[in-house]
Amino acid sequence: MRKVGVAILGLGVVGGGTYKMLTEHREFYQKTQGIDIVIENVLERNKEKALALGVQENKIAANIAEICSNPDVDIVIEVMGGVEPAKTFVLSALNAGKSVVTSNKELFCKYSYELEKAAKKNNCGLFFEASCVGGVPVIRALLDNLQGNKVLSMMGIINGTTNYILTKMTDEGASYEEVLKEAQRLGYAEANPTADVEGYDAAYKLSILSSLAFHTKIPFSRIYREGITNITAEDIQYGKQLGYTLKLLAIGKNTDDGIEVRVHPTYIKSGHPLASVKDSYNAVYITGDCVEDVMLYGRGAGAMPTASAIVGDVIYCATHPTFRYSTFKNTEDADPSTKFIDNFKSAYYLRLNAHDKAGVLAKVSSIFSRHNISVAQMIQEDDGAADGRVPLVFITHQTKEKSILKAVEDIKETNEIADVISVIRVVS
Amino acid sequence: MRKVGVAILGLGVVGGGTYKMLTEHREFYQKTQGIDIVIENVLERNKEKALALGVQENKIAANIAEICSNPDVDIVIEVMGGVEPAKTFVLSALNAGKSVVTSNKELFCKYSYELEKAAKKNNCGLFFEASCVGGVPVIRALLDNLQGNKVLSMMGIINGTTNYILTKMTDEGASYEEVLKEAQRLGYAEANPTADVEGYDAAYKLSILSSLAFHTKIPFSRIYREGITNITAEDIQYGKQLGYTLKLLAIGKNTDDGIEVRVHPTYIKSGHPLASVKDSYNAVYITGDCVEDVMLYGRGAGAMPTASAIVGDVIYCATHPTFRYSTFKNTEDADPSTKFIDNFKSAYYLRLNAHDKAGVLAKVSSIFSRHNISVAQMIQEDDGAADGRVPLVFITHQTKEKSILKAVEDIKETNEIADVISVIRVVS
Repeated sequence: MRKVGVAILGLGVVGGGTYKMLTEHREFYQKTQGIDIVIENVLERNKEKALALGVQENKIAANIAEICSNPDVDIVIEVMGGVEPAKTFVLSALNAGKSVVTSNKELFCKYSYELEKAAKKNNCGLFFEASCVGGVPVIRALLDNLQGNKVLSMMGIINGTTNYILTKMTDEGASYEEVLKEAQRLGYAEANPTADVEGYDAAYKLSILSSLAFHTKIPFSRIYREGITNITAEDIQYGKQLGYTLKLLAIGKNTDDGIEVRVHPTYIKSGHPLASVKDSYNAVYITGDCVEDVMLYGRGAGAMPTASAIVGDVIYCATHPTFRYSTFKNTEDADPSTKFIDNFKSAYYLRLNAHDKAGVLAKVSSIFSRHNISVAQMIQEDDGAADGRVPLVFITHQTKEKSILKAVEDIKETNEIADVISVIRVVS
Repeated sequence: MRKVGVAILGLGVVGGGTYKMLTEHREFYQKTQGIDIVIENVLERNKEKALALGVQENKIAANIAEICSNPDVDIVIEVMGGVEPAKTFVLSALNAGKSVVTSNKELFCKYSYELEKAAKKNNCGLFFEASCVGGVPVIRALLDNLQGNKVLSMMGIINGTTNYILTKMTDEGASYEEVLKEAQRLGYAEANPTADVEGYDAAYKLSILSSLAFHTKIPFSRIYREGITNITAEDIQYGKQLGYTLKLLAIGKNTDDGIEVRVHPTYIKSGHPLASVKDSYNAVYITGDCVEDVMLYGRGAGAMPTASAIVGDVIYCATHPTFRYSTFKNTEDADPSTKFIDNFKSAYYLRLNAHDKAGVLAKVSSIFSRHNISVAQMIQEDDGAADGRVPLVFITHQTKEKSILKAVEDIKETNEIADVISVIRVVS
């Protein structure tokens, strides 16, 4: 039976899961895949952690050079996260002729061009299914299933932490701060939650996924990004009342006018399949010109679901030696011919606090009218707070981003009339 | 640019869609894939149909031999359906050294062993993503993404016609006969709907999918199959009342005790992601030992969604020349070591018509008790029909199939007490 030697860089949550999956399923892969996958090395500074997992001491490499020069290692699995030293290690492995499987979204998002060039030069495989949406098979779906389509749009719930927080806020009416604390206690959010709650994690993934979907490099820097830290329980409740569920969506669109890519809190119709994606589940909803709508749903993070994607890539790499991994014309930065749309069209949710109940609707309506914005739905509460301020909620029809921003400025200037509390985009 | 010549066998709904997709996207594939896909031949008895699609007369082949001997044809697309002459044509193509892409579930389900043997012998590719669930990327997910998992179970809504009928019955309270007629008028059901409504179509697909998921041949003949023709609007309404939605599910399970494979009407909790798969949409819900739950959702049929799967395979075949398509130990029939479970466990819904309201609950309860069946939920209507009969609905806890069948026999024997109207399995 053919032996396939692997090395694992990093035995954290995902690395530990990968170690466990490969060791416990070794016989299963011999039987079902006809290959014997052997863990030849691990790289882990915390030696005790490695030994506790069951790694033999002589398999713990002193450094990346030892792994690169080990002729028994065919595939290097990088599950360290972050740019350095992961980047140096991955390039070393590729330059030593090892194929690489990585779960590192930040690294792949920022340096795919450099990594691919090295893989190509050294005739190695480079696999990254685990970098986006954990166990959900979205990268291979884009590369190997939907590649005959012109992908018109994708909308994804691709960050588990924020979806957990928004689900709890929706189902329990709790505040952002309360739920964040609970999520941190349960290990669903990190002590420093910025990467998740400010949308960086989702934007890294959107960069990778939209580059594949649209066959051209979509750099992280071109993605509009807005997190969930300002979302209130009130906004979620008003949304519900109007038939919408609030999600942090990663949106990519490819139209005749250009490409738009953005991560922001978004109201989506409560009947839409994405609205029922709850807790830490993830899903990507892809619309192609021929396939119509496809949704891929599952665990977007966690030790074993991410290990599933990594091991899937390891087996694929081991059984498809001439894998040509990517067909999009990858470039270091965006192709100069790519047109990005910043002033995109969307429907909008606006929540105001009206000081002057009698005059506010006329005034706000005239501002909307001046900017060619038409209102689709409105809620005006009968009774306001003790200070006499009355909540007023609008959902507009499709309009340009810049029009809504100008209208909001104008409303803010009339501060005797109303305060603008929230402005949230709506998928209509 | 490398030219890839294809031939299309059959220009029906799917063949026409494939022709359209390949011709309209030709430039797009040149740009994004670096290949020029050219339709070199079609095989279609109805010459007018071919000409109407825009096929040049000299591309219409007289017979399969002409295509097999055309050196410009690299890939043959079989979209004729049915076993013959599709089987003869596919084998001819493979024996002539052409790779084959097929959407033919019946053919692949029944003759995968023979077709794979021919493909292997001739070193050709053989691709069949389009055979199951149209544009939904389920076959490659099982082969190339989830193959590191032990797949514990799969549950699928994999027939669009029956899902359309059941959705309409659920949402509108209409009868099976009414909705079937409407579906036939709209082209969602065929004039002879047997293959769909009796579950044959779903069972062909389950045979293919479970063989891949469980890494061993699951023949069609081993699949328990029951259609939706006896489903009534009443059963759907009672299910709703109890929190369940009725779907035709294809279920495959792989446990320590053996494999169970079955297609039948099934109640599923109304909050389950599969319950909200409506109309002609399809979805497959897969549970792996590491990935946990994954759901793949989309259009399971139709000209363009199915063409999307075919063209995906054509591009994959053209860009991955040494594709080793399948790793499961395929055999002509089930491996003798495979243990199938016929007496599977399930929860059950029973609807009775009680003649004697006073005595029926005691009597039925004692029969359940005798067969070790425990009741989870019960509805007894206060008022019966004009004839004095009173509907009585039970949902049981998990029990063995044979126990419930014996209990139903016993209830039927006590015909002075109650008639058994419906017995439907429940995913609990």
